[in-house]
Amino acid sequence: MVYACAPPTLRRDQGTGGVALTLKEIVERARKDTVVPISERDVERTLSALLASEDIWRVIDLSQVPVMALVRVLSALKGAGLLDWDGGRLVLTPAGREFTESLGIGPRLELKCPHCGGRGTTLGPVGEIAGRFREIAADRPEAIQDYDQGYVTEETTLHRVAFMWSRGDLYGKDLIVLGDDDLVSIAAALTRAPRKVVVLEIDQRLVDFIRDVAEKERLPIEVKQHDLREPLSPDLKGHFDTFFCDPTESLRGFKVFAERGIAALRGPGSAGYLGLTHCEASYAKWREIQRFFLDAGTVIAELRDAFHDYVNWPYIDHMRSWPHLPVHRIPGHEEIWYRSALVRIEVVEGPHIEERRYEGDIFADEEAATT
Amino acid sequence: MVYACAPPTLRRDQGTGGVALTLKEIVERARKDTVVPISERDVERTLSALLASEDIWRVIDLSQVPVMALVRVLSALKGAGLLDWDGGRLVLTPAGREFTESLGIGPRLELKCPHCGGRGTTLGPVGEIAGRFREIAADRPEAIQDYDQGYVTEETTLHRVAFMWSRGDLYGKDLIVLGDDDLVSIAAALTRAPRKVVVLEIDQRLVDFIRDVAEKERLPIEVKQHDLREPLSPDLKGHFDTFFCDPTESLRGFKVFAERGIAALRGPGSAGYLGLTHCEASYAKWREIQRFFLDAGTVIAELRDAFHDYVNWPYIDHMRSWPHLPVHRIPGHEEIWYRSALVRIEVVEGPHIEERRYEGDIFADEEAATT
Repeated sequence: MVYACAPPTLRRDQGTGGVALTLKEIVERARKDTVVPISERDVERTLSALLASEDIWRVIDLSQVPVMALVRVLSALKGAGLLDWDGGRLVLTPAGREFTESLGIGPRLELKCPHCGGRGTTLGPVGEIAGRFREIAADRPEAIQDYDQGYVTEETTLHRVAFMWSRGDLYGKDLIVLGDDDLVSIAAALTRAPRKVVVLEIDQRLVDFIRDVAEKERLPIEVKQHDLREPLSPDLKGHFDTFFCDPTESLRGFKVFAERGIAALRGPGSAGYLGLTHCEASYAKWREIQRFFLDAGTVIAELRDAFHDYVNWPYIDHMRSWPHLPVHRIPGHEEIWYRSALVRIEVVEGPHIEERRYEGDIFADEEAATT
Repeated sequence: MVYACAPPTLRRDQGTGGVALTLKEIVERARKDTVVPISERDVERTLSALLASEDIWRVIDLSQVPVMALVRVLSALKGAGLLDWDGGRLVLTPAGREFTESLGIGPRLELKCPHCGGRGTTLGPVGEIAGRFREIAADRPEAIQDYDQGYVTEETTLHRVAFMWSRGDLYGKDLIVLGDDDLVSIAAALTRAPRKVVVLEIDQRLVDFIRDVAEKERLPIEVKQHDLREPLSPDLKGHFDTFFCDPTESLRGFKVFAERGIAALRGPGSAGYLGLTHCEASYAKWREIQRFFLDAGTVIAELRDAFHDYVNWPYIDHMRSWPHLPVHRIPGHEEIWYRSALVRIEVVEGPHIEERRYEGDIFADEEAATT
């Protein structure tokens, strides 16, 4: 135990006086032997989450720290005698509680509106197709690791479609969906609001499923099997008002999806929607992505964090971060811990996109947690 | 009347066939003799708003088009025989309705959660001080035009404080508020969550008011009279975890506020909150502002549009856009039409800010509507 009592006015950058341990030292320990970016605020967020829950999945969710960084912070806290998890719960030791308090850190509060789950949306006319969409989705293909799949709850897909409608990006518009394990194309087309929906999907199971549904329900959906590492065909490029995609989150992979989406847009006034997590992306990565958006001629028109809730995927105990987790409990199917922000971008000029062909793995980078 | 019937499959970029008028032509008419940026999507948003309401204030709100651009679009639509407002209501003519339909434009739907007003937040512990805050705010100084004032509803201020708390930017933190006609400092300090609150305010009436309240309620608020065109004093620079400001929206003015706020922050992990409207800022301006944020070393962590509702200010019939409005009805005190997004930025590196001294008017640019 290296921690001693600190006055309540301790600043997080002061390591002198009665204190044997600082936030900075925890960060240094956590950073040892890893290239994952870890900040002092990551440690602060972790401690705040630990004050609110002792469950590993809730702590991941509440902390909003990338999982591969979080596991390092948790280890550093344990190594310093501030945290314990021998009983399967993440419990701050008395020294850990004192340390946290001395830094003026309080328990994380979510303060999400309970009616909309913090999204801010109501379904409106999308509510009319909710029942049918849920029936259809009940028979969906299960998520597989090969393509970094993992789909959102049906509630999420419906709210996403409502959001697009409310922003004027659905009714009367041509929509392209790049990768559709969330079945956005089906929910969108069931509303009969869009003029046309095109899906690019690599997974033959999903191609078949969406095609079958479209035929049975007479929906204006066209599905093409396509590997997004390949550029769009000329008949797709510049032909859409709106794109939706939920990219893989390596920086390279994210850009592949976003590039294809933006290249599909007609021009100024066209809009794109993307998902972006904390679980697999630090704010440093977010910033890189945002610079890419601006350089492409788009503006960030909305960014609603934790809009998307994901159902747990069957390969959870095979994901990259699993062996690093301090506690190995498989969460329930709809025990939500993986969420992503909804980002809406709109083209202001251009778009300025140079479409490239990519090769090899687009899923991995040092922050990747689920592939 | 220059419009003739169009097939329902008309694309917005096609002006041939049976159609005598296109979206592009409306934009060209609207752009005549003005430097305000106006896009085809602005016209589309205007038409969509006109399908949903005939009231000028609702149309401003629903369209999300800068007011000084909107008034030009409305005039262009009237000039083309598509819109009429002789009776004090904005009524699409039969030709206007046909034109709108031919473009596949539907009525604007807001789809805001009715419980949280679309913000996504619940007050949580902030609810406990709501009553006291409303009592205090009842005696606030009225908004004046000299400093481009115009305050948000008390509900908005409370939700804003809850949002800051939920993001870990309030509890145990040092907060600086740059310009505080919204009384954020009082609501924040009443919760007893922040460690310290500093207010920089130019208006002597507000300085006195906040000081008096702080004394009576024994709140940890320090108020300094300060003109934000002047750089921060060294005892403020780099000393805060969180800043809040609701900038004036000329690009220059916005940057003045944001520069001071960012300069007040400690470093990586510190956060800033700003308001940003559509009424006075095009997406082109939003994009400039976002580039400024990224260059300053920050990331955009949240952007929730229409989070802030503003109470109407007494000088509404003296604001810059008033003579340009097609209908001159003074809206009720809490008949909300002016809203702004809540933007949260977080420092990733730096911050990189070169503080400058500004002179002269910081309120005016071509999109300014209220000064």
